[in-house]
Amino acid sequence: MHDIALIGAGRIGKIHAANLAANPRLRLTRVVDPFPEAAAAIAAQYDARVSTIAEALADPAVAGVVVASSTDTHLPYSLAAAEAGKAVFCEKPLDQDLTAARESAARFAALDARLFLAFNRRFDPNFATLQARLAEGAVGALETLHIISHDPAPPPVEYIKVSGGIFKDMVIHDFDMARWLLGEDVTEVFASASVLVDPAIGEAGDVDTAKTILRTASGRLCVISSSRRSGYGYDQRIEAFGSKGLIRAQNQLETSVETWDEEGAATDRFQNFFLDRYAVAYAREADHFADILDGAVPLIDFRDGVAALALAEAAAQSARSGERVLL
Amino acid sequence: MHDIALIGAGRIGKIHAANLAANPRLRLTRVVDPFPEAAAAIAAQYDARVSTIAEALADPAVAGVVVASSTDTHLPYSLAAAEAGKAVFCEKPLDQDLTAARESAARFAALDARLFLAFNRRFDPNFATLQARLAEGAVGALETLHIISHDPAPPPVEYIKVSGGIFKDMVIHDFDMARWLLGEDVTEVFASASVLVDPAIGEAGDVDTAKTILRTASGRLCVISSSRRSGYGYDQRIEAFGSKGLIRAQNQLETSVETWDEEGAATDRFQNFFLDRYAVAYAREADHFADILDGAVPLIDFRDGVAALALAEAAAQSARSGERVLL
Amino acid sequence: MHDIALIGAGRIGKIHAANLAANPRLRLTRVVDPFPEAAAAIAAQYDARVSTIAEALADPAVAGVVVASSTDTHLPYSLAAAEAGKAVFCEKPLDQDLTAARESAARFAALDARLFLAFNRRFDPNFATLQARLAEGAVGALETLHIISHDPAPPPVEYIKVSGGIFKDMVIHDFDMARWLLGEDVTEVFASASVLVDPAIGEAGDVDTAKTILRTASGRLCVISSSRRSGYGYDQRIEAFGSKGLIRAQNQLETSVETWDEEGAATDRFQNFFLDRYAVAYAREADHFADILDGAVPLIDFRDGVAALALAEAAAQSARSGERVLL
Amino acid sequence: MHDIALIGAGRIGKIHAANLAANPRLRLTRVVDPFPEAAAAIAAQYDARVSTIAEALADPAVAGVVVASSTDTHLPYSLAAAEAGKAVFCEKPLDQDLTAARESAARFAALDARLFLAFNRRFDPNFATLQARLAEGAVGALETLHIISHDPAPPPVEYIKVSGGIFKDMVIHDFDMARWLLGEDVTEVFASASVLVDPAIGEAGDVDTAKTILRTASGRLCVISSSRRSGYGYDQRIEAFGSKGLIRAQNQLETSVETWDEEGAATDRFQNFFLDRYAVAYAREADHFADILDGAVPLIDFRDGVAALALAEAAAQSARSGERVLL
Repeated sequence: MHDIALIGAGRIGKIHAANLAANPRLRLTRVVDPFPEAAAAIAAQYDARVSTIAEALADPAVAGVVVASSTDTHLPYSLAAAEAGKAVFCEKPLDQDLTAARESAARFAALDARLFLAFNRRFDPNFATLQARLAEGAVGALETLHIISHDPAPPPVEYIKVSGGIFKDMVIHDFDMARWLLGEDVTEVFASASVLVDPAIGEAGDVDTAKTILRTASGRLCVISSSRRSGYGYDQRIEAFGSKGLIRAQNQLETSVETWDEEGAATDRFQNFFLDRYAVAYAREADHFADILDGAVPLIDFRDGVAALALAEAAAQSARSGERVLL
Repeated sequence: MHDIALIGAGRIGKIHAANLAANPRLRLTRVVDPFPEAAAAIAAQYDARVSTIAEALADPAVAGVVVASSTDTHLPYSLAAAEAGKAVFCEKPLDQDLTAARESAARFAALDARLFLAFNRRFDPNFATLQARLAEGAVGALETLHIISHDPAPPPVEYIKVSGGIFKDMVIHDFDMARWLLGEDVTEVFASASVLVDPAIGEAGDVDTAKTILRTASGRLCVISSSRRSGYGYDQRIEAFGSKGLIRAQNQLETSVETWDEEGAATDRFQNFFLDRYAVAYAREADHFADILDGAVPLIDFRDGVAALALAEAAAQSARSGERVLL
Repeated sequence: MHDIALIGAGRIGKIHAANLAANPRLRLTRVVDPFPEAAAAIAAQYDARVSTIAEALADPAVAGVVVASSTDTHLPYSLAAAEAGKAVFCEKPLDQDLTAARESAARFAALDARLFLAFNRRFDPNFATLQARLAEGAVGALETLHIISHDPAPPPVEYIKVSGGIFKDMVIHDFDMARWLLGEDVTEVFASASVLVDPAIGEAGDVDTAKTILRTASGRLCVISSSRRSGYGYDQRIEAFGSKGLIRAQNQLETSVETWDEEGAATDRFQNFFLDRYAVAYAREADHFADILDGAVPLIDFRDGVAALALAEAAAQSARSGERVLL
Repeated sequence: MHDIALIGAGRIGKIHAANLAANPRLRLTRVVDPFPEAAAAIAAQYDARVSTIAEALADPAVAGVVVASSTDTHLPYSLAAAEAGKAVFCEKPLDQDLTAARESAARFAALDARLFLAFNRRFDPNFATLQARLAEGAVGALETLHIISHDPAPPPVEYIKVSGGIFKDMVIHDFDMARWLLGEDVTEVFASASVLVDPAIGEAGDVDTAKTILRTASGRLCVISSSRRSGYGYDQRIEAFGSKGLIRAQNQLETSVETWDEEGAATDRFQNFFLDRYAVAYAREADHFADILDGAVPLIDFRDGVAALALAEAAAQSARSGERVLL
């Protein structure tokens, strides 16, 4: 049983709190948030204490820290926790600034930090099964990859403005997924992006629709399709083309119910909400953090955070310039 | 190249004419029909002659006769053709009267007749593939069977009145399919039937909805679901449950196009018309007739016609009496 | 927050304990079991006390009792709890003996008992959605129904011997489902059953494969397909045929992953275990019990338990006699 | 009834001959081929005459000419036929050389030629339905498009050497499809390509795997995925993402048969051969040619041939240079 401090009591913090509480190997003991009411609500629900960061890091019983605060604090809080000798569970992204992320990586490396960068999709049972079968060679050698990530609907423009842009905010998940599945460094990035969903997103300086091609040294190719709005729910699919066939992971429906009428067969709705879609993934993240506290090596660490951010930066640059970016 | 005479120039006669004409081993040379215009239209299209039955049967060049006339003439015309030494392609059913069918079977047997009773569904690529895999043992030993045959919409009540009833007119296809797939004689029949689609069908003395259970000597069970109206197209499905798994054949859609929106995923329409659904099966029937003319044994003969009719009669009796019928 | 006592600390008792503990409106305070270690394990995990039945029923703080003990104790424990004024959550079946069940029903009625008979499938999101759409008239008026319930593999023969037979043990779920969906009393039952899976089941006096037809007063028809072994996982499907179309609920797969190769497309495995398949249903049962404690009327009560048992008895009798049974 | 001359009696010529013969509005009267035996075989089968090109073009009864000869002869034969006043059905591509194609386009325009450039996929019922629904606005305004065209297996390297390269030989179909569906001119092309299937293809100076992004003036984006080998059959899919949802056309299976076992559900094989996949499309092409002979405007003409070739050239250039190409 490991004591855990949670920093950040917002939407994602609540999810992590529930999964920490439900995990038989973890115990949530401290909750930190600039809004004391938010921290208190979680603390009350799970029998934890409201704390400051300093208190949490000074508590020798605290073995691990979950950093689920605002994006700009991920790095400083994670570093502070690592320096205090705690294992760190850091929400994605590591940071929006590649230079800062690279500098921090050097410090994490020097500290030999146990930092788990929580790209949730690697823990989704569908994508994890796809990855495992691909790695087993179920369809021979991987040649190309298609990743589709279309959100049900765009976030508020106020969020867009501070998001770091679609590539760092949203496509970064897919860059991590691509790196994981390709099993090889990406050497070239080309992206073409548009404002097709909402002109306000363009006025905020961002794009809402993009297609990105990644290329590896051996010539493997990956296409990522990104949109802030699908019109039909949360579209999260992967197709991996191998030398002997294809493996794919498809979307989730609300139920297995179908209606047949003179127009044909109609399924139930697609799952619409990322917290539903990735509910199991979040629970598995907590379990992996317990594994780390028991001695396991993080499946995703700060280096992966830097690498995904580098791809996001390259894609954003390519979309602006119209030129491919060599890495 | 075998010369063929066609008796019957109605809807199904036209289908057979087209398939005879398209088959490189067959040549349609004579067309017989009580309506000379109907016969003439087909004859003109395929360079054949309008004939009487007598002329057709007297023509030594005619090797085979396709009997696609009204149901009450299937037996006499088939017998006459067999007696004239012709191979016979007889549309289903052999007859509506079990006693007459049994008597004729004795005569066909005495004549050593080459009579192909054309239950089209055995020639459907989907059902034929299902049967072949079942026979190969792809799912172990067959235990039970579900057959669904729901028509898109009921025929006119005038047709219902002369149809012989749902079991002899419609379910007879499924009795043949069940016999083919079960690979064993049926020993018990129970049917429960209702008028749920159209009261006029009930007033005509028939039912429009039925569920039938067949049982074989070894205890294999088959359920047949029958309806004169589906509301969504032509529902023709089979599920075969074996000791190691299931094989099923599903419905056909107009195209592979799907639309995804906030209600979910919707396919294109189900195929609605039996001539579309069984277009390939009809062509394969013509090819099998060519095989018979080249010396092959009919895959389905008059014995199968009698056996399917006996099941239809038993099911109708069970539905009336409420009691199972032992065969 | 309602205090709950759990009677029965076996496999299903553990499931209920976990769902009671996770429900914010319920608190598991007492656990009863003839094996003190089993009771103690659950009590320790959820901060409850090991109790006798007498203690639990005497505790005025206990508002509800969950009866998850062996089948032969369902009735006496439920009655005792009802007499003590507790709300009762009773695992299915109410009893294996129809006479006893009918007598108890009179007593429950006299007590105005709040008894929830927990047929879990009504709480499955797939079947619940199917039922809701059917009730809304999404496919017009219901005409016929197909229910498939094939278990992955048979239970031990020792269990078969005390199970009450396939109809009372397994098909009883489907009888309840049929009653719920048909929305009308069943007036006739016919069943045909065989021993096809394992001769030992036959030697134990039971059957392992059955097809049952139910008929209602208005002529609606329902087919139930039952097997103790599927060969491919847990097969739990429903098709409801209405006057304007069909609604169906399909099986669940482990993941959405598909592999395409030269043999075609292959899905992941079907879910195999009823506790996985109905995990959400069990949680929803606990929630419904909280509703009952807050004043709601049980969605399923002892009358439903008696009615399902009556159908099971009729089906067993029909399978033995070969005759339909009128109710 | 229009008389047609066929130039080219190879594999694709035979397909067109059969469809011309089966079309009630067309009559195949002349067959031209450098190999007299090939021409004679087709001529014999359909009661046509073996001819020279000069004879065919000089015959005033010949209303239309089908050019199905080798690629390098498409342009000269089509021009000759147009100059002789015949309607022309020209197999794709118009030519491999963009300059030559552009010059010919000017001549066709000057002649007011009725030239139908036969990109078969536009006549496939699946893709045609997708296009029609998209045009009706079934999913709102089109935003992005994914086209997947992976062949079952690569052609012989000898063919690769004269093919003009993957973009002109294979992806040209998809460029035409993209133009048709996007409904707007493409302004930018980026392609990344590799040799992953067979090194011999690379040694022949070509690539076997490519991902191409097209961009239109309004910012619509299209991704084309190309491979000379799938490992699972003929992969021909389209997904069109609109402002209100998605429309997609999926692959074709050999039959609707599925097998379920402990590994999950497995479909039948994917269709493997383009002549099967596009059998209906070829028949519809013949019918469209009959429409043209009756006065209709060709749905696809030489301008479309030039435009698709221009995209192919741009993509090939981009793949070589690593830079996007502006059009």
